[in-house]
Amino acid sequence: MTVGNDVARLVAEARDGQARAVARLVSLVEDGDERLGQIAAALTPCTGQAVVIGLTGAPGVGKSTLTNALVRAYRAQGRRVGVLAVDPSSPFTGGAILGDRVRMQEHATDPGVYIRSMSSRGNLGGLAAATPQAVRVLEAAGCEVVLVETVGVGQAEVEVASLADTTVVLLAPGMGDAIQAVKAGILEVADVFVVNKADRDGVDATVRDIKGMLTLADRSGADAETWRPPVVRAVAERGDGVEDVVAALAKHHDHLVAHGELTARRERRAAAEVEHIAVGLLRSRLGTVKVLQELAADVAAGRTDPYTAAHTLVGSMA
Amino acid sequence: MTVGNDVARLVAEARDGQARAVARLVSLVEDGDERLGQIAAALTPCTGQAVVIGLTGAPGVGKSTLTNALVRAYRAQGRRVGVLAVDPSSPFTGGAILGDRVRMQEHATDPGVYIRSMSSRGNLGGLAAATPQAVRVLEAAGCEVVLVETVGVGQAEVEVASLADTTVVLLAPGMGDAIQAVKAGILEVADVFVVNKADRDGVDATVRDIKGMLTLADRSGADAETWRPPVVRAVAERGDGVEDVVAALAKHHDHLVAHGELTARRERRAAAEVEHIAVGLLRSRLGTVKVLQELAADVAAGRTDPYTAAHTLVGSMA
Repeated sequence: MTVGNDVARLVAEARDGQARAVARLVSLVEDGDERLGQIAAALTPCTGQAVVIGLTGAPGVGKSTLTNALVRAYRAQGRRVGVLAVDPSSPFTGGAILGDRVRMQEHATDPGVYIRSMSSRGNLGGLAAATPQAVRVLEAAGCEVVLVETVGVGQAEVEVASLADTTVVLLAPGMGDAIQAVKAGILEVADVFVVNKADRDGVDATVRDIKGMLTLADRSGADAETWRPPVVRAVAERGDGVEDVVAALAKHHDHLVAHGELTARRERRAAAEVEHIAVGLLRSRLGTVKVLQELAADVAAGRTDPYTAAHTLVGSMA
Repeated sequence: MTVGNDVARLVAEARDGQARAVARLVSLVEDGDERLGQIAAALTPCTGQAVVIGLTGAPGVGKSTLTNALVRAYRAQGRRVGVLAVDPSSPFTGGAILGDRVRMQEHATDPGVYIRSMSSRGNLGGLAAATPQAVRVLEAAGCEVVLVETVGVGQAEVEVASLADTTVVLLAPGMGDAIQAVKAGILEVADVFVVNKADRDGVDATVRDIKGMLTLADRSGADAETWRPPVVRAVAERGDGVEDVVAALAKHHDHLVAHGELTARRERRAAAEVEHIAVGLLRSRLGTVKVLQELAADVAAGRTDPYTAAHTLVGSMA
């Protein structure tokens, strides 16, 4: 099989809407395949248009249920939708694949929906790097909205969720996630808060907690131009409040566009992505520098310190 | 204050055993102070001799209690001991500092013991990088044994724990940590397992689970030279089994020395550390390359792909 032709054919098939080609490309991206560069180049002409929405929250808050409800809502608007369900905490794909199948059932016969799971396979950095590529695959396949759902509220999840244009943080009453959100740095990345299971006791307290923390965090002078994350109540299982979530997402998107922030955000993300790949290229060069082993031996033996050694190493690359 | 003199003076004071200078140096290291290189160079003549023991496990398994018991045991052998309590999951120092004070009480008047907490301050990568430097500070202060205790059983904790010569994984009956350990990749890094709270129900099942998983993982041909992690039972609170833990640690250290593995491990760690610092140096150079913003704009607009852009960026560095 000629590698170059293979990638070109897969991308052509994905653009043609063939689900198997889409799945294969996402797998190649997830595995960090050596053809990543080729794949990215082939995808480029058909990317950059989709709205990317990140969704994160602790296990049990109802992320999958809300994602499903959002897919339904966007389909009702006639938009093609892609879903990436990312599980940074699990090196296994088993659970994620099961999740796929369960979710698939409702949308299995709808050619306007792609749903796909990604696991870390033990490599968090890799996952954060692979996700934007997987988003591009779904864009190339014609998705106009891509939902990136991550499990958990740790820093890795925040990192993945913040690859989106708009980041939704999902909470539920009585789970103490408000504190978790602060600890994980979620306040900084959340554009929209959704308090799900809003028919439960304690919902008022949860909403109050979040608003309180947003007020505390809002140290900047009151600027009418600044986006202030709304706190939306929902019972996703019954579809209650889903319209409000969709409206909040649209409003945030309009805000980004109106303030030139959409392009600015995407350029910041692209800069980080390019830098990450460039660092990987440089790192692989460093690995081939013979002097590294000698320097390491010197450091281990206390003959030099790691900073001096690092400068020597970088100097030897030229 | 002359910066260079300041570092030289602090290091001299730390070598002289002044606790305040030790604390100040660890803080500078933890903060990623710009004088890191100077500090590392000043510390180098007095490092490379301490035995470094990593200790990790889920919250509640009794890590602090075991650490305290080990400090007592090593002090009884007449060895000077340093403890770094690392909390990768918390960006706050509050809890850790409280922990310090509680722990301090027993060893507060013992000049042969340094105890110090480090938190991630929201930067996991930074913590993994700072820990070996903090170990060097304690070595320079005369510690012959340094215990690095990390909270949690995630990948970050594994990363920090595996900076040690010997890594101890602490479990307790009935916490389902055996599975967690596999998920987090702990089986690969554990040199000694300790099942604490061994007076509780379910201890036999926990020991059996670990041994079972070690057998499953042991796919290599049976080699008499291969270290097989022992599973030690303890009730650290009563001091039961602590001697066995100390013996297992000594045995592992002897094994490393006898097989040339101690030097090999330290060189591998030094290589990773030097590479990490070198990548940081290269990354800071990339950040100053003007072309990055233009390339990012091209990627965001779909005019090029991030891999092509990264190659262009690296090419422009020369």
